[in-house]
Amino acid sequence: MRKQKPVAESFVRMTELVLPNDTNTLNNLMGGRMMHLMDIAAAISAQRHSNRIVVTASVDNVSFREGIKLGNVVTLEAQVTRSFSSSMEVHINVWSEDIPSGTKVKSNEAFFTFVAVDQSGRPIDVPEAVPHSEEEVRLYDGALRRRQLRLVLAGRMKPQEATELKALFEME
Amino acid sequence: MRKQKPVAESFVRMTELVLPNDTNTLNNLMGGRMMHLMDIAAAISAQRHSNRIVVTASVDNVSFREGIKLGNVVTLEAQVTRSFSSSMEVHINVWSEDIPSGTKVKSNEAFFTFVAVDQSGRPIDVPEAVPHSEEEVRLYDGALRRRQLRLVLAGRMKPQEATELKALFEME
Amino acid sequence: MRKQKPVAESFVRMTELVLPNDTNTLNNLMGGRMMHLMDIAAAISAQRHSNRIVVTASVDNVSFREGIKLGNVVTLEAQVTRSFSSSMEVHINVWSEDIPSGTKVKSNEAFFTFVAVDQSGRPIDVPEAVPHSEEEVRLYDGALRRRQLRLVLAGRMKPQEATELKALFEME
Amino acid sequence: MRKQKPVAESFVRMTELVLPNDTNTLNNLMGGRMMHLMDIAAAISAQRHSNRIVVTASVDNVSFREGIKLGNVVTLEAQVTRSFSSSMEVHINVWSEDIPSGTKVKSNEAFFTFVAVDQSGRPIDVPEAVPHSEEEVRLYDGALRRRQLRLVLAGRMKPQEATELKALFEME
Amino acid sequence: MRKQKPVAESFVRMTELVLPNDTNTLNNLMGGRMMHLMDIAAAISAQRHSNRIVVTASVDNVSFREGIKLGNVVTLEAQVTRSFSSSMEVHINVWSEDIPSGTKVKSNEAFFTFVAVDQSGRPIDVPEAVPHSEEEVRLYDGALRRRQLRLVLAGRMKPQEATELKALFEME
Amino acid sequence: MRKQKPVAESFVRMTELVLPNDTNTLNNLMGGRMMHLMDIAAAISAQRHSNRIVVTASVDNVSFREGIKLGNVVTLEAQVTRSFSSSMEVHINVWSEDIPSGTKVKSNEAFFTFVAVDQSGRPIDVPEAVPHSEEEVRLYDGALRRRQLRLVLAGRMKPQEATELKALFEME
Repeated sequence: MRKQKPVAESFVRMTELVLPNDTNTLNNLMGGRMMHLMDIAAAISAQRHSNRIVVTASVDNVSFREGIKLGNVVTLEAQVTRSFSSSMEVHINVWSEDIPSGTKVKSNEAFFTFVAVDQSGRPIDVPEAVPHSEEEVRLYDGALRRRQLRLVLAGRMKPQEATELKALFEME
Repeated sequence: MRKQKPVAESFVRMTELVLPNDTNTLNNLMGGRMMHLMDIAAAISAQRHSNRIVVTASVDNVSFREGIKLGNVVTLEAQVTRSFSSSMEVHINVWSEDIPSGTKVKSNEAFFTFVAVDQSGRPIDVPEAVPHSEEEVRLYDGALRRRQLRLVLAGRMKPQEATELKALFEME
Repeated sequence: MRKQKPVAESFVRMTELVLPNDTNTLNNLMGGRMMHLMDIAAAISAQRHSNRIVVTASVDNVSFREGIKLGNVVTLEAQVTRSFSSSMEVHINVWSEDIPSGTKVKSNEAFFTFVAVDQSGRPIDVPEAVPHSEEEVRLYDGALRRRQLRLVLAGRMKPQEATELKALFEME
Repeated sequence: MRKQKPVAESFVRMTELVLPNDTNTLNNLMGGRMMHLMDIAAAISAQRHSNRIVVTASVDNVSFREGIKLGNVVTLEAQVTRSFSSSMEVHINVWSEDIPSGTKVKSNEAFFTFVAVDQSGRPIDVPEAVPHSEEEVRLYDGALRRRQLRLVLAGRMKPQEATELKALFEME
Repeated sequence: MRKQKPVAESFVRMTELVLPNDTNTLNNLMGGRMMHLMDIAAAISAQRHSNRIVVTASVDNVSFREGIKLGNVVTLEAQVTRSFSSSMEVHINVWSEDIPSGTKVKSNEAFFTFVAVDQSGRPIDVPEAVPHSEEEVRLYDGALRRRQLRLVLAGRMKPQEATELKALFEME
Repeated sequence: MRKQKPVAESFVRMTELVLPNDTNTLNNLMGGRMMHLMDIAAAISAQRHSNRIVVTASVDNVSFREGIKLGNVVTLEAQVTRSFSSSMEVHINVWSEDIPSGTKVKSNEAFFTFVAVDQSGRPIDVPEAVPHSEEEVRLYDGALRRRQLRLVLAGRMKPQEATELKALFEME
């Protein structure tokens, strides 16, 4: 039987200072640099769940709200939500803090998917991810729907077969 | 009346060499570094369309297929597909080349959205993006549907109101 | 009266992946890069305590034990131990994880001191740091002795006046 | 018998320009970046003495005085002071120059300790370091006392046994 | 007989954003960073012509005119002009754009020479480079003269033997 | 009268460790990175002569001989040779050391030209550079000829007017 592992064991918190080279001409953190940080935090979380080398398989839609300024502190928290044979979905929350002014805002939220691989880069099975808290269960339950959306968007599933997704668009 | 501008004027080609610090322990380009490059190429394209400073507003689902090795050459081509008042959708194609072995593969495709801003960071209108080639028209036409998906995913539109999107999930 | 603040509010956890450029020809993390990470983690902690811009004033003796390999995950935890008018001592613990092999070892422990400054770089008072847990009290109590050692080593206090320190070297 | 080598053969001078990414929001060189530079200069000096790969073993207390500004030139001079079987103590002096204003100030002074290792990372003996100038002799003579302090601080020697150090704290 | 290849197949276009760390205290791109970019673009072009690993053999005189500002977009276009057994001359044009102000200026022009090598770093023959357009023929024809100048400057040819070059300095 | 300054006051020695990101797939230092280091060393030398901000005006032909390996130590020595109103020619010697194997080779030699500018980027006169040693006089004397070559190559002087240069190509 497949090994089981609580999702909480994959929790990662990463804290970063926004440096000049991370910013655009408005002195705001560039979106691409933010995604770079998200990818590292999420990859470490997927590594913790699988005890394997992992490679990024996909990134779900990410939206950027507030500008994050030079000198701000960015905190990223990543945790696996659910696993599917060799792949793991990771949920990431990002906050931005301007410490001297005492403000801290939620800046982004995203889902990354990773595949665990062996030394030659071949996919390899990972433990089942077991949710415990209410929030973990909610994220676990939504993972199937998000997975269908990814497959539809990648052209690997027909929209009509995406039963979880379809329900969303149907009227009563 | 709003200024018009052919989408082809926003075309950008970027070529990059994969360096050691861009890679993971399998010597493959990390997903986050790839998104960083995509963001820069797409931002330059959006700048060319708008002649403005631009900030990343969102990134659509990106999937990663083949591993890209250390020493490979990555080519990114970005072009605006359509604009909506102050925002622009940019389409990006990525190829990876292993020159000594003579192989070149399509590696990724993505859509990024940018907002044009003035010096104080406030959104400002951009020219209308006019498609000419068949491919440009196809990308222009799909932009509305992708925009509805972004709004639904960001919780800013109800699935039932996303008329373009809904059609996809309806049976015959 | 001076504002009081629990030391726990300054807690920072930072997680980093060891990348190629961080390593020497044995593929081990270089000591200087480790100190660079420690300085950033500790500076964020001192910022959190003071809500000010901070500058590094001194670093206590740091020793390096095990080599940390390329691809390892480094976790740094920093927390203020005690404050003295405008300066704060920060304690840092560092662990190194080789996730695929499932090993995690304590790698370093250090004390950095920071000074809070205003926009023109002039020292400015910070809140009193209040310890609660047993460990926090132990670190708070040792801070005075470490401070005397710093002053003696910087030639700003005579060894004979370093009463806390002197006791250590005296026999019964 | 152990090979002898004049300490002056390990002399290294390094000159660096302070770039934007090295600085904090006050445009001053960050302490951690300075220690990174010190570690590289000192490691090259220890390599020159031992003709071996070297790894950082410890850093003694470093204090930071004046802020060093963006665009300044930093000069580091490193030289081995004394060797103990496989380890070498290296002394580093740092100056900061603001060339347009014609000012040059001594900014830091530090002692780093390195261990020479073979290709598998095992410690290996190094030549005896022989001082010649008066300054070199003074640094050589102090090395034993600094070494006792390092051992005491690392919990590997009892304060009462640190005879060289103890003398400092005794009255009359 | 030696393989032939149109020079146009080696064409490379690279687009880069000037980031803070690329600039000096006047916020202008540093000359050394520009040469770093030129070297990467030209190396990719030489790789495309030879399908080999390539190493930089020489750089001809480069002059820098206008300052290129932080936030500008730099476009480099590189193409092989001619090959000589294992070496290739690459021509590079550089433009700088300040997109918000709508200005684009030719910034530099240079010739780099690369040698194709095998996995052990030994020189290996490359295809003959065949020019087609008028501009390609002009660059091909001048390559011999530039090569003589390189050999004379490197002390590997006597000025009197550099027949192509000599003609330039003779009267009537 | 114009201020005079011995060229030796502009001497700069820079020592750098070759890190992974500086190397190509053969683990050799890339030519572009080497030119980046040369530019920084030479710029500091020109700053020391002029006590001004300086910008790179041109780089003379540079040739690359031996490959420089990952982990090697690169030493650059730069010194002004001669000044012409607001411009200065700087001579750079580069050595590469493989310390564990005890080899040190001369790797490159180059001439860079810088212009001193004021805070708004306008050229400003610099002190006259006065040579003393035999080698300094030799470099000073050759500077005029190299300057004519630069002007001819930049199309700003006719070959027939380059009297110093012409002599080289004449028989007898």
